[in-house]
Amino acid sequence: MKIETPQIEDIHDAALARRLQQVLDQKTKPLGSLGRLESLALQLALILGSESPRLHEPQLLVCAGDHGLAARGVSAYPSDVTWQMVENFLAGGAAVSVLARQHGLTLTVVDCGVRHDFAPPGAPDGTRPGLLVRKIAPGTADASAGPAMTPDQCLQAISNGQAVVRALPGNALLLGEMGIGNTSAAALLLARLSRQDIAACTGAGTGLGPEAVQRKTALLRQVLQLHARATTPLDALAAFGGFEIATLVGAILQAAQERRVIVVDGFIANAAVLVAQALQPRVMQRCVFAHASAERGHALMLAELKAQPLLDWGLRLGEGSGAALAWPLLVSACAILREMASFESAGVSQAS
Amino acid sequence: MKIETPQIEDIHDAALARRLQQVLDQKTKPLGSLGRLESLALQLALILGSESPRLHEPQLLVCAGDHGLAARGVSAYPSDVTWQMVENFLAGGAAVSVLARQHGLTLTVVDCGVRHDFAPPGAPDGTRPGLLVRKIAPGTADASAGPAMTPDQCLQAISNGQAVVRALPGNALLLGEMGIGNTSAAALLLARLSRQDIAACTGAGTGLGPEAVQRKTALLRQVLQLHARATTPLDALAAFGGFEIATLVGAILQAAQERRVIVVDGFIANAAVLVAQALQPRVMQRCVFAHASAERGHALMLAELKAQPLLDWGLRLGEGSGAALAWPLLVSACAILREMASFESAGVSQAS
Repeated sequence: MKIETPQIEDIHDAALARRLQQVLDQKTKPLGSLGRLESLALQLALILGSESPRLHEPQLLVCAGDHGLAARGVSAYPSDVTWQMVENFLAGGAAVSVLARQHGLTLTVVDCGVRHDFAPPGAPDGTRPGLLVRKIAPGTADASAGPAMTPDQCLQAISNGQAVVRALPGNALLLGEMGIGNTSAAALLLARLSRQDIAACTGAGTGLGPEAVQRKTALLRQVLQLHARATTPLDALAAFGGFEIATLVGAILQAAQERRVIVVDGFIANAAVLVAQALQPRVMQRCVFAHASAERGHALMLAELKAQPLLDWGLRLGEGSGAALAWPLLVSACAILREMASFESAGVSQAS
Repeated sequence: MKIETPQIEDIHDAALARRLQQVLDQKTKPLGSLGRLESLALQLALILGSESPRLHEPQLLVCAGDHGLAARGVSAYPSDVTWQMVENFLAGGAAVSVLARQHGLTLTVVDCGVRHDFAPPGAPDGTRPGLLVRKIAPGTADASAGPAMTPDQCLQAISNGQAVVRALPGNALLLGEMGIGNTSAAALLLARLSRQDIAACTGAGTGLGPEAVQRKTALLRQVLQLHARATTPLDALAAFGGFEIATLVGAILQAAQERRVIVVDGFIANAAVLVAQALQPRVMQRCVFAHASAERGHALMLAELKAQPLLDWGLRLGEGSGAALAWPLLVSACAILREMASFESAGVSQAS
């Protein structure tokens, strides 16, 4: 399977990076004393190509989909929780809803393939505010019996993600997801694309006990064997799913092409980045990793990508909640660069 | 030396803690899946004594003072930077000014003993918006030649801090400081009160090179020997200084008595907490530690207090900048508790 992925330009502009470092070093503070806030400011300024970067109209995209594999008991929750949580997002009661409200993030939920009808059949988009229906099918096929998606379904989901982001305003995209069973898909993608043992990639998800994690691991090992020939990023994505991850891959590629700042949430959103950067490595230049999840496998995935997360808070909820939580830290980084006085402008003496 | 410290009540209300845990566990998320955000929410709710905690009118108090010891070359910057940075705070150009603006924190600078006149002599407070003059003296005495403060000066500074906070609105206090030379005072307090070797407590401060840190360490070792009998928290505070740290000690005691949330910045603000909790251990119940500073000694100090900081960003600026940066994370914790739906209210299925 192949797609024409967009050309993604190299954002590293050596001259701009030098000027930015000079600007930071002239701010009224000891050299480097704002630590990670300075490196974050530098990255955001390079992504946005500006010495005075400003984030505007940030979009939190929550992609939702169901997984055929969930019927095999890989989650502590029933598949119905996927659509129930989508309703909760739309009603404003989920963690990500609360955090999005706090920070003025526009929350858009995409039904990428939930086993439920949210809008009347044939109803136009916008029937329900905050929801986009880009449903490929009501859940993926069971990956333990065959590929989770057909090649066409996989490509369509990616294309949907691209189109969704193309239509969104703003210069920052926060990634969220919902899908009972999707830590399994993410673990499978990590194991295959990073050549790691599945045991190191498989965790408790929504809260399995140790024995259930062992059963999940054994099942995922079989799934990997069944799809031993799915070794390219797209073949692996189609084999393991899910629709929400594939839609996120498209969203990431589009956002990267448009030089938006991409704020990556936890294990599942990060799995979409793993696929996207395998297709287009420069995606990584645009990614800010919000947090290190408590889900086993995420630390490995972050290490694989040489990514340094902003928070280490033991979060393992998904939905984009960690990305939303970390958002004001990105706003701070831009504000420091734009608004802090220099030694000269403030009349402050420098180090001797 | 002794003071009458206020009675500080035990905020741990077992019944409220149980109810809060039930409320958190009924929110639409897997049990415990918001990690540190949940424990933070629990702490804030207990401090504020409410099942639906709300932070209001947060106050960022930046206490400034000069140090006689600075003349001995313990800092990379001249003492004049203390008053120059106070001017920068008032003009809105410092890191803490930028972050306070971003988050709607009211910034109050207290001249606790800066070697500079900010307001015309005899001018009433409020002559300069955002500045309170509570000056004990234009800088402490040189701690390498005698005590940095007299007992009366030390007690007066503590009393000033109490009075300043008593007059401030709101239920949260963020601690900041400015004072060239004050990593030395903080290192001395840590070494004495925690019985640690001074070498483990002494760092680069505003940016000393390795040799200068060695000279600083040697000097601080002499200062410790000179004040070998200053072993109580107050005697140590008077011996080592500074006025800004003593004023912060008073501010912390007052805030704790009023059950305000206390947001602790880095090494120096934390040294004030070290003194305050030695006088009144329940102070610790009210403290949220914003970040682990890159200044050597801070990790040790946090470990000594069994404190778990929110961020690990290699900050070492002071001013309250780390506390201001972390502030929205506290707001998020309260919002999660107040605004998230429960499984029942949202109609979401629970784990099987």
